[in-house]
Amino acid sequence: MQQIVYRPIGILHTPFHSVRGMPIQPVGAIGVVGRLEVYPEFEEGLRDLDGFSHVIMLYHLHKIQGHALSVRPFLDTSERGIFATRSPRRPNPIGISVLRVLSVTGNMVELENVDMLDQTPVLDIKPYVADFDVWDADRFGWFDGVSGNAVRVRSDGRFESAPSCE
Amino acid sequence: MQQIVYRPIGILHTPFHSVRGMPIQPVGAIGVVGRLEVYPEFEEGLRDLDGFSHVIMLYHLHKIQGHALSVRPFLDTSERGIFATRSPRRPNPIGISVLRVLSVTGNMVELENVDMLDQTPVLDIKPYVADFDVWDADRFGWFDGVSGNAVRVRSDGRFESAPSCE
Repeated sequence: MQQIVYRPIGILHTPFHSVRGMPIQPVGAIGVVGRLEVYPEFEEGLRDLDGFSHVIMLYHLHKIQGHALSVRPFLDTSERGIFATRSPRRPNPIGISVLRVLSVTGNMVELENVDMLDQTPVLDIKPYVADFDVWDADRFGWFDGVSGNAVRVRSDGRFESAPSCE
Repeated sequence: MQQIVYRPIGILHTPFHSVRGMPIQPVGAIGVVGRLEVYPEFEEGLRDLDGFSHVIMLYHLHKIQGHALSVRPFLDTSERGIFATRSPRRPNPIGISVLRVLSVTGNMVELENVDMLDQTPVLDIKPYVADFDVWDADRFGWFDGVSGNAVRVRSDGRFESAPSCE
């Protein structure tokens, strides 16, 4: 099958050194500060980024091994199809977080609300634009009534060092 | 440098067969219907997806060659750092679109507001959850006052068949 090859544009520095006990979404990491260190060869691409209050970050969930098509999410007690969850053990383990930009200095971007592991490789950052990214969604499936719990629920070990692809 | 290898989970069928003239964001493609054909080995992962009105789709911008660190975006007349734009000619050409789910039938997901090229390889779909994805952003940099134009501005050829990495 076709392969798609990417290379990280930088690496994250965050207070989270273990999957266990870390926040599962930025809403559970309000005020947590981290830094994106963009590799020097990409620094030019950061120009104008300081005009935005928020960015969308795409990153590689580098501690996830293998994937599952059905998982029991952190916020639920039932198994769900992986594409109906935000769980990390996905066929392509790409994470997405909307983060607040505190400052851009050279190749360093200081960010707030970081919910990623330290040393996470970053694939892309895009400006968060309300006209593009805010939608009037009205059905949230199994998240209905439980997504608010992400403010306090923490990760456990269920998705780390898991057996290979199913 | 480290390589990250992904494999598509499926392919998109859309009405757009050429980069030129296509919408640049889902807000410019309201009502446009397309289909995600998930490869059969991933079909199980779609369970429960029909409970959601919207999904976040991540896809590989397969017609983009090379990248640029400064680009003149479709909505602007000035050059901007690539990470302060939504332009496709990124170091890692990953696109993101929030789409309305019309139906999920077997391995087929019918979607509305599609702004992607036909035959685009899909990397991931995640449920759109307002509690996670809607943020009270208040600064939109150079997009301020122009992001609304994405409703009518169409793509041209500026990012296709471009010279190799800069």
